[in-house]
Amino acid sequence: MVTIKDISEKLGIAPSTVSKGLHDAKDVSPEVKKLVLDTAIEMGYVTKKMKNKDRKKLALFVENMLYEKKEDFGYDIILGFRQAAAKEEWDVVIIPLDKQMQENVPYDRYMMRHEFHGGFFIGVALDDSWILQMEKTTIPTVLLDNFIGKNTNVAYVGTDSFEGIDFAIEHLKEHGHTRIALINGSEHSMISEKRHDAFIRALQHYELPIDEDLIAYGHFVEESAKYHFERFYKLGATAIVCGNDLIAVGVLKECKRLGVKVPQEVSVVGFDNVPIAAEVSPALTTINQDRLHIGKSAYATLYWLIEKVAISVSLLRPSLVIRESTGKVNKK
Amino acid sequence: MVTIKDISEKLGIAPSTVSKGLHDAKDVSPEVKKLVLDTAIEMGYVTKKMKNKDRKKLALFVENMLYEKKEDFGYDIILGFRQAAAKEEWDVVIIPLDKQMQENVPYDRYMMRHEFHGGFFIGVALDDSWILQMEKTTIPTVLLDNFIGKNTNVAYVGTDSFEGIDFAIEHLKEHGHTRIALINGSEHSMISEKRHDAFIRALQHYELPIDEDLIAYGHFVEESAKYHFERFYKLGATAIVCGNDLIAVGVLKECKRLGVKVPQEVSVVGFDNVPIAAEVSPALTTINQDRLHIGKSAYATLYWLIEKVAISVSLLRPSLVIRESTGKVNKK
Repeated sequence: MVTIKDISEKLGIAPSTVSKGLHDAKDVSPEVKKLVLDTAIEMGYVTKKMKNKDRKKLALFVENMLYEKKEDFGYDIILGFRQAAAKEEWDVVIIPLDKQMQENVPYDRYMMRHEFHGGFFIGVALDDSWILQMEKTTIPTVLLDNFIGKNTNVAYVGTDSFEGIDFAIEHLKEHGHTRIALINGSEHSMISEKRHDAFIRALQHYELPIDEDLIAYGHFVEESAKYHFERFYKLGATAIVCGNDLIAVGVLKECKRLGVKVPQEVSVVGFDNVPIAAEVSPALTTINQDRLHIGKSAYATLYWLIEKVAISVSLLRPSLVIRESTGKVNKK
Repeated sequence: MVTIKDISEKLGIAPSTVSKGLHDAKDVSPEVKKLVLDTAIEMGYVTKKMKNKDRKKLALFVENMLYEKKEDFGYDIILGFRQAAAKEEWDVVIIPLDKQMQENVPYDRYMMRHEFHGGFFIGVALDDSWILQMEKTTIPTVLLDNFIGKNTNVAYVGTDSFEGIDFAIEHLKEHGHTRIALINGSEHSMISEKRHDAFIRALQHYELPIDEDLIAYGHFVEESAKYHFERFYKLGATAIVCGNDLIAVGVLKECKRLGVKVPQEVSVVGFDNVPIAAEVSPALTTINQDRLHIGKSAYATLYWLIEKVAISVSLLRPSLVIRESTGKVNKK
């Protein structure tokens, strides 16, 4: 069990100050309160107030996504969501989602039975029966990276793929690249579609040629690189934009296997900026999604849905993190 | 000066309850507090707390838009913004924007000099010098219906044009229309562009023919109808989708002038659902933007920008309000 003393030690401030921060005392500054509360949540501290059964509850469903360790993709998303929710005294219950529980009970009934005011889904599968129910749900619900049309109870949050890919193409063009390939994620994912459209639009924006032979769908895993990289390289591609960081890591491995030097012979750009992007060698240039902020904006969006403000979509700005996997094109 | 008694009379509850609501007393329910506060703001009541000079301030800039009367387009946007802001103890200062003040002082300097934490712009002109400064501003800023790329301090709020136009085309197709024309707003407005793209996408979605001869840009005023309606009608259009309600009102007038019956001979759809849409005859079928909610989501977005969460865009769901100007296509 995490105690006030643990938080006090982590932050290097007096236990009495931590206690005041947690109990919203007037003589502690808002900045310190925020820091204490955020840290308490990150460490898993549970206040008496949080234990109170009358508190309002939100459900956070996770499927197909790691989230328990700091380096997992879902960790910061959940942390951001909980930090923003706790400030307005909501309890957040993390619920691993499986197909069986979805078959057992419809989504709306599940939520009402457990007295959840709203739900946030991360990492779902499109064939989940609950996702199929989203078109008609009456429960305020936020989906990460999934859009449902025409239901005022459901909103989509994520990161603007167009601006992200635009940053990447701008950066590659500045380094002299003109033959740029795309190894995308799964063909039936909304996010792959957006990244594909963004890739085409960015090439047009920077007046670079579009070559359909240099565009491929795969899956959001390392192995996708194997099926496409060598062909693209032989077709003269000097830069590869990838649907996510895992695909990009796969491309780096293919380059190693084939003796292709990165970035001297080919530049590689990922998407997401998961922790592994900084750890591989060469370290990946990638489009950053701020996962803590995704969590916060998901909470904010869910809050407004509960207040009957029908938000449809809320997107964050991406940024380009330039590391070692991109550089000047090698003149042959 | 609005008094507690005025609010009490408007709501039909005791003055003591109003007072408790305004002062956040514990024995008044959150629902009543919300109602009292919203009503107080709508009536222009100023609490002692609001008068406090130390309160944080937001600026709301208005240009080219009426907002002082209940039927004005800007009225509910401003009301929603102020209601949401007041709940978190922000003061909102409404500032009519003119070209001269923009020439006199750069935006960032103006905001810092007046100690504003952030700004919300409604109804600006694209050639405003402050709008040109938005690409580099360091001040958290929200724009209604305008998008600025790659600046993490600026966000765009509005209503999803794609879903709105999709609703309209679906409704027209259900009534047998296949030749549908678009009289759009100004060619260089982002919103016109979105509505144009949405129109094309919706025709594709419902497998209706796209005829470039039935698409025209104009301006967001009644007069635009004059230049295009008669031609479209002669080309066999049985339904006209308009860039906003004013254009649609212009189409109704043209129909009257030419002796074309609405909806027996031609259906007309507006966009926005301003009060006049319900008052004209026949009353306009139109795509509704919830202006109170636009104001609230603009505040929410600005709040998160101030908190360094880089929201890029936040859109609301539209809805279709079906009145008398649309109906079954007349078989000739």
